Amino acid sequence: MKGPAIFLAQFLPPVHESTSLKAMCEWASGLGYNGVQIPTWDERIFDLKRASESQSYCDEVLSTCREAGVEITELSTHLQGQMVAAQDAYSEALDPLAPSEIAGDITAQREWATQQLMMAAKASKHLGLKGHATFSGGLLWHRMYPWPQRPDAVVIKAFEELADLWLPILDAFDEAGVDVCFELHPGEDLHDGASFDRFLEAVAHHPRACILYDPSHFLLQQLDYLAFIDIYHSRIKAFHVKDAEFRPNGRSGVYGGYLPWLDRPGRFRSLGDGQVDFRAIFSKLTQNGFDGWAVLEWECCLKHHDQGAAEGAPFIAERFIRRTDRSFDDFSAGSGN
Amino acid sequence: MKGPAIFLAQFLPPVHESTSLKAMCEWASGLGYNGVQIPTWDERIFDLKRASESQSYCDEVLSTCREAGVEITELSTHLQGQMVAAQDAYSEALDPLAPSEIAGDITAQREWATQQLMMAAKASKHLGLKGHATFSGGLLWHRMYPWPQRPDAVVIKAFEELADLWLPILDAFDEAGVDVCFELHPGEDLHDGASFDRFLEAVAHHPRACILYDPSHFLLQQLDYLAFIDIYHSRIKAFHVKDAEFRPNGRSGVYGGYLPWLDRPGRFRSLGDGQVDFRAIFSKLTQNGFDGWAVLEWECCLKHHDQGAAEGAPFIAERFIRRTDRSFDDFSAGSGN
Amino acid sequence: MKGPAIFLAQFLPPVHESTSLKAMCEWASGLGYNGVQIPTWDERIFDLKRASESQSYCDEVLSTCREAGVEITELSTHLQGQMVAAQDAYSEALDPLAPSEIAGDITAQREWATQQLMMAAKASKHLGLKGHATFSGGLLWHRMYPWPQRPDAVVIKAFEELADLWLPILDAFDEAGVDVCFELHPGEDLHDGASFDRFLEAVAHHPRACILYDPSHFLLQQLDYLAFIDIYHSRIKAFHVKDAEFRPNGRSGVYGGYLPWLDRPGRFRSLGDGQVDFRAIFSKLTQNGFDGWAVLEWECCLKHHDQGAAEGAPFIAERFIRRTDRSFDDFSAGSGN
Amino acid sequence: MKGPAIFLAQFLPPVHESTSLKAMCEWASGLGYNGVQIPTWDERIFDLKRASESQSYCDEVLSTCREAGVEITELSTHLQGQMVAAQDAYSEALDPLAPSEIAGDITAQREWATQQLMMAAKASKHLGLKGHATFSGGLLWHRMYPWPQRPDAVVIKAFEELADLWLPILDAFDEAGVDVCFELHPGEDLHDGASFDRFLEAVAHHPRACILYDPSHFLLQQLDYLAFIDIYHSRIKAFHVKDAEFRPNGRSGVYGGYLPWLDRPGRFRSLGDGQVDFRAIFSKLTQNGFDGWAVLEWECCLKHHDQGAAEGAPFIAERFIRRTDRSFDDFSAGSGN
Amino acid sequence: MKGPAIFLAQFLPPVHESTSLKAMCEWASGLGYNGVQIPTWDERIFDLKRASESQSYCDEVLSTCREAGVEITELSTHLQGQMVAAQDAYSEALDPLAPSEIAGDITAQREWATQQLMMAAKASKHLGLKGHATFSGGLLWHRMYPWPQRPDAVVIKAFEELADLWLPILDAFDEAGVDVCFELHPGEDLHDGASFDRFLEAVAHHPRACILYDPSHFLLQQLDYLAFIDIYHSRIKAFHVKDAEFRPNGRSGVYGGYLPWLDRPGRFRSLGDGQVDFRAIFSKLTQNGFDGWAVLEWECCLKHHDQGAAEGAPFIAERFIRRTDRSFDDFSAGSGN
Amino acid sequence: MKGPAIFLAQFLPPVHESTSLKAMCEWASGLGYNGVQIPTWDERIFDLKRASESQSYCDEVLSTCREAGVEITELSTHLQGQMVAAQDAYSEALDPLAPSEIAGDITAQREWATQQLMMAAKASKHLGLKGHATFSGGLLWHRMYPWPQRPDAVVIKAFEELADLWLPILDAFDEAGVDVCFELHPGEDLHDGASFDRFLEAVAHHPRACILYDPSHFLLQQLDYLAFIDIYHSRIKAFHVKDAEFRPNGRSGVYGGYLPWLDRPGRFRSLGDGQVDFRAIFSKLTQNGFDGWAVLEWECCLKHHDQGAAEGAPFIAERFIRRTDRSFDDFSAGSGN
Repeated sequence: MKGPAIFLAQFLPPVHESTSLKAMCEWASGLGYNGVQIPTWDERIFDLKRASESQSYCDEVLSTCREAGVEITELSTHLQGQMVAAQDAYSEALDPLAPSEIAGDITAQREWATQQLMMAAKASKHLGLKGHATFSGGLLWHRMYPWPQRPDAVVIKAFEELADLWLPILDAFDEAGVDVCFELHPGEDLHDGASFDRFLEAVAHHPRACILYDPSHFLLQQLDYLAFIDIYHSRIKAFHVKDAEFRPNGRSGVYGGYLPWLDRPGRFRSLGDGQVDFRAIFSKLTQNGFDGWAVLEWECCLKHHDQGAAEGAPFIAERFIRRTDRSFDDFSAGSGN
Repeated sequence: MKGPAIFLAQFLPPVHESTSLKAMCEWASGLGYNGVQIPTWDERIFDLKRASESQSYCDEVLSTCREAGVEITELSTHLQGQMVAAQDAYSEALDPLAPSEIAGDITAQREWATQQLMMAAKASKHLGLKGHATFSGGLLWHRMYPWPQRPDAVVIKAFEELADLWLPILDAFDEAGVDVCFELHPGEDLHDGASFDRFLEAVAHHPRACILYDPSHFLLQQLDYLAFIDIYHSRIKAFHVKDAEFRPNGRSGVYGGYLPWLDRPGRFRSLGDGQVDFRAIFSKLTQNGFDGWAVLEWECCLKHHDQGAAEGAPFIAERFIRRTDRSFDDFSAGSGN
Repeated sequence: MKGPAIFLAQFLPPVHESTSLKAMCEWASGLGYNGVQIPTWDERIFDLKRASESQSYCDEVLSTCREAGVEITELSTHLQGQMVAAQDAYSEALDPLAPSEIAGDITAQREWATQQLMMAAKASKHLGLKGHATFSGGLLWHRMYPWPQRPDAVVIKAFEELADLWLPILDAFDEAGVDVCFELHPGEDLHDGASFDRFLEAVAHHPRACILYDPSHFLLQQLDYLAFIDIYHSRIKAFHVKDAEFRPNGRSGVYGGYLPWLDRPGRFRSLGDGQVDFRAIFSKLTQNGFDGWAVLEWECCLKHHDQGAAEGAPFIAERFIRRTDRSFDDFSAGSGN
Repeated sequence: MKGPAIFLAQFLPPVHESTSLKAMCEWASGLGYNGVQIPTWDERIFDLKRASESQSYCDEVLSTCREAGVEITELSTHLQGQMVAAQDAYSEALDPLAPSEIAGDITAQREWATQQLMMAAKASKHLGLKGHATFSGGLLWHRMYPWPQRPDAVVIKAFEELADLWLPILDAFDEAGVDVCFELHPGEDLHDGASFDRFLEAVAHHPRACILYDPSHFLLQQLDYLAFIDIYHSRIKAFHVKDAEFRPNGRSGVYGGYLPWLDRPGRFRSLGDGQVDFRAIFSKLTQNGFDGWAVLEWECCLKHHDQGAAEGAPFIAERFIRRTDRSFDDFSAGSGN
Repeated sequence: MKGPAIFLAQFLPPVHESTSLKAMCEWASGLGYNGVQIPTWDERIFDLKRASESQSYCDEVLSTCREAGVEITELSTHLQGQMVAAQDAYSEALDPLAPSEIAGDITAQREWATQQLMMAAKASKHLGLKGHATFSGGLLWHRMYPWPQRPDAVVIKAFEELADLWLPILDAFDEAGVDVCFELHPGEDLHDGASFDRFLEAVAHHPRACILYDPSHFLLQQLDYLAFIDIYHSRIKAFHVKDAEFRPNGRSGVYGGYLPWLDRPGRFRSLGDGQVDFRAIFSKLTQNGFDGWAVLEWECCLKHHDQGAAEGAPFIAERFIRRTDRSFDDFSAGSGN
Repeated sequence: MKGPAIFLAQFLPPVHESTSLKAMCEWASGLGYNGVQIPTWDERIFDLKRASESQSYCDEVLSTCREAGVEITELSTHLQGQMVAAQDAYSEALDPLAPSEIAGDITAQREWATQQLMMAAKASKHLGLKGHATFSGGLLWHRMYPWPQRPDAVVIKAFEELADLWLPILDAFDEAGVDVCFELHPGEDLHDGASFDRFLEAVAHHPRACILYDPSHFLLQQLDYLAFIDIYHSRIKAFHVKDAEFRPNGRSGVYGGYLPWLDRPGRFRSLGDGQVDFRAIFSKLTQNGFDGWAVLEWECCLKHHDQGAAEGAPFIAERFIRRTDRSFDDFSAGSGN
């Protein structure tokens, strides 16, 4: 496993302030990170279009990172990925994620998003990356709870449609030699193992349909995030190190009753403040030979982001496991007990 | 507490078969139930419009029940209540719940549903009932999970709209002397204590805005259903005795990954086959002086409905607590230890 | 094990109503009990002084029971036992337990109580009983929590005093061939294994210093009531089948904040409504060869005593274990797997 | 699922007493069982050799059962199956299971056992049975714990040998149209899912290599017996309803410290006295379409076998689930909530 | 939140050794503490009378602290507070806490204690403090367990008396602008939320009746110390960081059987050696805007006080949460996922 | 308690590489260990025969250690101890542990092993050691699970034989003034408290029959390793600080299904990566006055041994408890609360 790395999205200064990739990389490096995951929607630090077209721009980016002492782990198109399957019911919420001139136009938004992903494939190749981080979008998420009754045909149809939207993108990434790592996440059609299984079937087990493993989302849906690794490790190609806690009470549970993040029973926390058992996760991933990056994602509702970023690097570093080269199974008399 | 009673909805024969209120009541009575909760959308057993207009029809209904050996616990407008807040994103799913001539017309559907509820208020009065069972509908359910970010203003506005839709209905029920008992349920804006609190505030703590307590929905969202009674007992006016189990695994958790009911980690079960601690619930409700009905609701994904109905009455009866009239606190020397 | 039996104390009618041993025994027998534990402080059903002096009175008592279809399990002097170690700080509370003419006079109350116990020894012998149920009283209970600091010397002295008070009584019971079974109970100096151990040492391991095992008091103090049997089974000579629940919350815990019984996190319940694992208890007692009586004690804060008494007999009967006479350890080829 | 049935082995009277199949069947039927699992090593009730050779003897057996009101669920060769893989280290323990003239002669014992199993295949066919209950024997069990270090080659070799021993038998059963259901059990090489997987591979996924599911052995090894059904249901063809409890302490754990059954932390119990969650098991088996028999196996270290047998039939009957014929997924408006 | 601070009481050298405020402050500062909570009963470090009368003495005290690098968090009158409600049954234990010349004279002791508290109010004002740490004393603690039966009237009367004793003191503190923070603690009438509620009502919700939150006492009474913060945060004005463990066994539970501290199932421990979830506590207090001091209290029965003090400061410092100034709820496109 | 120390066995380089005691001690010292436990079967670092005969060799060894900055904690004869009770069924596995010329000759192997232990006694004396670490060997381990039925006579006989084998050795160690500390371990007849009890009885409570406490083996057998200390502390004279985890699943449990270490549900881990509660262990051992060494034993199936060794010393050091010299029980007014 490589790391510690950091996802830059939540640490970018407010949009009216200026910043640069160089500044962000130096900041990350100064905190002890040796990798950065780069969001592709903020031109202050990265120009996706240019990166998809110009190897020399990408070399420049690589050089900026190298000089700051960090590598690029993956590019992220979480926001654009969401729009690949843009949906009417969410237009008000999703419009800000796409160009304002196509606000409310689902078809145009989906096309725009697809182009963004295509660009990300090329850019990733230019940058020599092996994986890519994104969201699947959600055609059916509003019907997650099966009341009113949800005939299975509805689900089948939605996943066919989702596969149609993603297959060209998966192929483009395949051409680029890059895995598409879907962050399994509420709000997305791909939000757990069962939904990923269905997608995998719908895309005929496309070799680039992979997983970004983020245990915080699994803890909050009470999914067994350790058993998940046992089952899906061959498809896990990226990893968000993000903590969360779930403390239900007599007023609310997993759905959260429309409360703000701070007051929800389930909420994200800074590393070490939540309930995720990271030692067990690092063990499972190491055991299964995961060789990607351990990337801090931070979205704490309580702790200051500067503190969260500063504490993250040593927290991750302490959990790395250098794999043994001895097997006690074939050990001879030298092994005591 | 009164009972055991049974909600008839899931026990009605398929729509192409015939039945009658008399038949259903006799069947229920024969199994040991002394109360029935009557769905108001199936004319084979109940004519809501007529009941709202005619005391003599209602007397006839009462007499049918009485002769069969059961009382009416509440009328139910779950399906119509859902439509009071009908919403575009769910039209395909909700259209079958309203007259086909207004399919897809949200405005008309809401008006129709409101009229249905108004009729239910009158009918309940004619039948001498104290409570009414329904759903709130969901204007905002599709945005239950706060990603993409959900500004609190969106929630505030939705609850204002929901209050506007329901206030006339609450007033109508007040006039009829009947409590509106919202079944807190996923898919509805009112799905837990926190969302009920917000609604209560939006309707200025309307005295008729009450709760139908169904622990199965709370167990499946991991809400503390016993602490819920401690907090909300003064608003709990109806009770569904329904069991559920939640066994998450490495593939899926609370959201269920679009699996069918049988395969979801969280699913409804027949009484005694699930994980709800009914002895504790009956204790809490008795302690807080609940004097409504204990009504079996059954929606088991596995067991035959005949078996579920037959086992339900004795299951409930065994859990009734006749309240003590002694207090050990002022007990004299007669109390040992 | 013998039973089901019932402790009559909490089922006696209010003091101004009349009753008789015959009436109580017939009532118990009618509910399915075959044993009664008799409180010795209510002359309506039992005259302790006479029983201690007259074999013929005792024969009459035995005959009354026999005719009603019950046996006597033990006599109880819980109230008088409490007074053997009467203490100033509790005079207001304890005075009603002793004759009013000696109210407030600790010395006289202790003497009176000792005489009562002496009589109980003789009466038990006349009735052919093997065990006796009582309380130890509490010289030190008010200093149970060690703040202000409680030097160990204080405890040593108190147990010496307690031993002095009880030794003559233990000897009297020894002479009568009857075990003194202290119900380990909060409020008494003997309230758990550790305090019983200290007492046992102070009375030089008197063979008649035994235990009435009541798991409800252990559950409420979070003591491991199953491990208790493993350790103390050789001294357990009587058994109260009494249920309890403990559900702490954010307002109160084991001490109860001076709340009334109904509102305390820890409270007594009717059999089956609490959290005691009686199947495991009956297994442990059977395994260790306990051959005394299983006596219902009922003090539910919620359920009516008539319901509690009616449900108790079958509840206990279902948990009896007829001991096997086969050992799979020396089983031959006949044992499959 | 069919049942309740009972495995007769542990209920046979001591070897010096007489009995008959008729007597045992009538006894079982009288207790409410409608099926019996028949051990094949006790000639008082069943003559295996004759049954393998004579259809008319088998017809007679069937008629005896039918007249008593029970069916045969499966034949059992647990003892003989153990000897198929007889092993030197256990000769002293295993000799009594085979004819005395071949005591200590592993080769002869294995041959004898193989012949017994061959006969059982034919007998099962003559009796029209679908499944057969047995043990795998244990070539490697003494090296279950990998100290001294156990090279994987040792395991591989042992399973090849085991497969060689069993393949002819599996083929014989295949010819008879009968599944060989190995009870996964400590002491056998097939004692959990992992070891069954290895065997399955060694016998090239032979279609007759199946499982007798007995949760008591899984609880005592802390294996997740519910997840086991999810994984292995397609191979589960027989079912022992047997209860167990595991209460480790400061003196002993799963290995039991050579204590006798009664004193071990893990031990078998009568139905309802242990910790197995049978409602969940019956749910899982029903959900997965298991259509075999639910057969009580009883080996309680504490309760009398008569009581265990009497309580078993109603215990099992209460847990049967008649499968629903309704799907709420395609339910129309008739479904409330 | 401010800190780490340390309560000096348990770190003072034995009474026959000399020390000074300067020495104690420098010691604390040297270990990394920036605040001290000062006991007011030890003249070696603080002269309460003088502090109540002289601003210049207080300025001197403040200067001593400042020069050593610490602030004063609160004064403590735990011992004197206990005596405000001095009670006969505890005279032997409490006499050492008050001047010897009034030993055994409850009335005089209460008056003396009240004067001490009045002085503490003035001294706190002179020192510019916002809160004060104390005990309520216990009029009723010996009747904590409701046997012999404890009529509610007894409790009502005791709390009226307690309110009468404390109201003048609360008023004096109000005048001084200082909150009276009662440490909720066994042995005191105010020992949990329920008893605090009753007191609050008895003092008419006096704005100065506040809480010193110490989770160790809640863990030992099995009270939900996190839910406590949800309910009472607006009254929590002081905080003791103290750890504890509770490991009940077959011999003893929460009452402790008069065992010494080291042998009790419930006992205090040094920070990190117990079971208190401090990360969750710091989260809850930060979330609720607590801006008082985090004060180590140490009373470990096992670890050396020097080690406890040295480990305490970094333990607390690591748990501080700098509050975020970002809200993901109104986050724009910059937020990834 | 003394430490941190380290058991050298698993850190020795492969047999074909060279090393020396000096090299190993300096390496250990450099990592922060101040003690080493020395295996006696590897002549590269220790010559057992010579040490048993020559005080000057031992002085040299001591001097080598001293100069490197470490002490010797104990000698280890784990491998030879195993052979004291060598057994036919394990010859293939055990032969490599003894001289090749006596391979397969149980009698000779037992004699050789006994001589080795005799030498270890003398060597320990020469080195001034107080304890010795070893295994008991296993005469009966293959019959650990009581099927086929295991008559108690079999166990009694085996322990008599085991006692006969060990008594001369125990006497030799007694003469040397050294405790024999058996590591309780699966595969050995002494593997838990119950088996140790039986052995103790068989050797007439020999004062040198002691325990090497290693919680990893207890966690993996689900034995309560904290309660174990309460019961056996007077015999615990050595301590292995070794971590383990047990995560059973639907495929395997405690027996492990012949899986390799990495894939077993129960497996050893590096300190901090497993589930052992070491803070509680260090508390219990300190409370009971254990004054031996805390010796890291490392056998992690996943982490590199260099990392394991480097992390071990600070992990252990942080858990040491310097015992308090204050008792709050006799504390005077100086104690606050």
